[in-house]
Amino acid sequence: MKTRLFTPGPTPVPERVTLAMAAGLPYHRSPEFREVLRRVSENLRYVFQTRGAVLTLTCSGTGGMEALFQNLFSPGDTVVAVNGGKFGARWVEMPRTFGITAIEVAVPWGKAVAVHEVVQTLQEHPETKGVVLTYSETSTGTTIDLQAIASAVRSLSKALVCVDAVTALGAHELRFDAWGIDACVAGSQKGLMIPPGLACIALSERAVRAIQESRTPRFYFDLRRALDTHATNDTPWTPAISLLCGLDEALRMIRTEGIERVWQRHRRLSEALRAGVKALGLTLFSESPSHAVTAVRVPDGIDWAVLNRALKKESGVIVAGGQGDFVGKIFRIAHLGHCEDLDIVVVVAALERALASAGMRTEPGAGVSAVLKVLAQ
Amino acid sequence: MKTRLFTPGPTPVPERVTLAMAAGLPYHRSPEFREVLRRVSENLRYVFQTRGAVLTLTCSGTGGMEALFQNLFSPGDTVVAVNGGKFGARWVEMPRTFGITAIEVAVPWGKAVAVHEVVQTLQEHPETKGVVLTYSETSTGTTIDLQAIASAVRSLSKALVCVDAVTALGAHELRFDAWGIDACVAGSQKGLMIPPGLACIALSERAVRAIQESRTPRFYFDLRRALDTHATNDTPWTPAISLLCGLDEALRMIRTEGIERVWQRHRRLSEALRAGVKALGLTLFSESPSHAVTAVRVPDGIDWAVLNRALKKESGVIVAGGQGDFVGKIFRIAHLGHCEDLDIVVVVAALERALASAGMRTEPGAGVSAVLKVLAQ
Repeated sequence: MKTRLFTPGPTPVPERVTLAMAAGLPYHRSPEFREVLRRVSENLRYVFQTRGAVLTLTCSGTGGMEALFQNLFSPGDTVVAVNGGKFGARWVEMPRTFGITAIEVAVPWGKAVAVHEVVQTLQEHPETKGVVLTYSETSTGTTIDLQAIASAVRSLSKALVCVDAVTALGAHELRFDAWGIDACVAGSQKGLMIPPGLACIALSERAVRAIQESRTPRFYFDLRRALDTHATNDTPWTPAISLLCGLDEALRMIRTEGIERVWQRHRRLSEALRAGVKALGLTLFSESPSHAVTAVRVPDGIDWAVLNRALKKESGVIVAGGQGDFVGKIFRIAHLGHCEDLDIVVVVAALERALASAGMRTEPGAGVSAVLKVLAQ
Repeated sequence: MKTRLFTPGPTPVPERVTLAMAAGLPYHRSPEFREVLRRVSENLRYVFQTRGAVLTLTCSGTGGMEALFQNLFSPGDTVVAVNGGKFGARWVEMPRTFGITAIEVAVPWGKAVAVHEVVQTLQEHPETKGVVLTYSETSTGTTIDLQAIASAVRSLSKALVCVDAVTALGAHELRFDAWGIDACVAGSQKGLMIPPGLACIALSERAVRAIQESRTPRFYFDLRRALDTHATNDTPWTPAISLLCGLDEALRMIRTEGIERVWQRHRRLSEALRAGVKALGLTLFSESPSHAVTAVRVPDGIDWAVLNRALKKESGVIVAGGQGDFVGKIFRIAHLGHCEDLDIVVVVAALERALASAGMRTEPGAGVSAVLKVLAQ
């Protein structure tokens, strides 16, 4: 049976990207590979919509966020961190590990932080050096009004606007320069359509200045070194060469499609999926749903383990379960990266069949009909 | 023209490893992938010759060494670090970044540290918590008598024996448990025959205890988290899935060949290469040559750039130049990982031709004849 991946990372890798990664490895200190790095940087600037530097690090998205905290802030600094899910919680814990004071703005899982909550916290903590936001919270499938929050922070404070866009990049409109973002981290195994192992980090001029001033001990993630070598299309340490060759190819695909069209595709696919899921009689979890991943409540009386097994065994469909307090209570379907109209039909059809196996009766075809209706608009 | 990679990382990737990496990505939180992680851990224990834990981190070898320093030592601790090349120098600088005092044992490039030098430094610094050794210094092609040094350190002190085996693992005999090593880091793009992006770190029971005691701030490289998840064949952060699938296949190959045979092959290939290089009238750089990489002096009157261009353009052979003060003065040929008898014939034949192009006359066939003579033994 075909395996059909709908997890919010890893996401399906296009064949031409796989082939690029399977081609012979270039030596990373060669002119040929510097050209790969140059092209990757240029195309990442396009994807982030920035004229500034975008660095690529060999690590997961969590490593990219560690680079952000270690390089922009020093022990004793204060940051405001919005926590609306598993990853938001991590961005409260992580700076504290490095001696940075993190003021937590706690938001219930599935809800988006309001602009005024961030503003109020900033007003209460004028010493704040940075505001940390998760643009698409993978654990809950929730997005925020990043543009409005960034604008409010900018007008109120000199705090750096720091964004976890690990799952958001390529799914949600993101205009790094125009929206006044200072640092933004993405992961490779999401909208960028390659396997995990790389994190990308875009930096504003203010962020680059902050990097020179940070006193946090750092070495592997020292962005001063990364910026120095970036200037000559090089890296301080041996990079994940094959993944960078894949990223080069994936970025060409995004550039060919056009980033606005990529955002629009994700919006459309997420709308179609939500319509399909609701037509099956299921309930969405998030009040502010992400375009990258949709969280769905496990219906009363249905055992998630049974439903998940049916999806996998009957249809080869792999989705993600809930995390934290929501294990067994929600599940998550990604429509991220290399995903098209008919993939949404596939996952909703598989869900209909799996629900039947798990003991929930739905009107045959209701889900996919709703999907097709949205897609026809 | 075929590209023939003789760089000390990346090294050639076997086709079956490439195919394993090109197969569809498993979801990293699935039973299928946990089985991959279980097998990788088990086979890494075999390769390191240890019954203890071997963790795999998504980063370069430098990241693996950062994990070692952050987890085994605390600010204010003292380590003794042997510096005989570019990487040795890095292992002096890195602990200092994290507030650890590094006592440097400086060794001229191309020379191996003597046991008594380490012993004397340890005696002068009884507060030493760790001794940091580079088993195969990639920048100089130099190996050390690791077994003797580890034994001396163990008999003299409670200092943890910490080894950079990034280029050594799979090339040099290494018996982690029997030799009393406490922590040992390897990189994926070397003897393990996969692309860069993973570091492996073997830990003794003493090291595991030290990890619980370290007060160095750490998050991404926090080995407490990695050990916790390792126990259930999981990882704290999203791992480089495709590279782990490749590592799984590469480790099967090593296990099939047998680790003693792998060590023996590297010894034999390095001896053959050295004989070939000397028969071409060239001089070796290291007094204690590594089995993984051979450093050769650029002959007087020969321009390294011309020689390197000839190797690449005429033969598709990619070797590495010198580093630090030895740029243009030495070059390095790796015989590491997926490397066989005839690969040594190839690189020596290419070198003969390139030397001729660069203006150095050699006796035709002298190099490859010397190679074949060693290989026939």
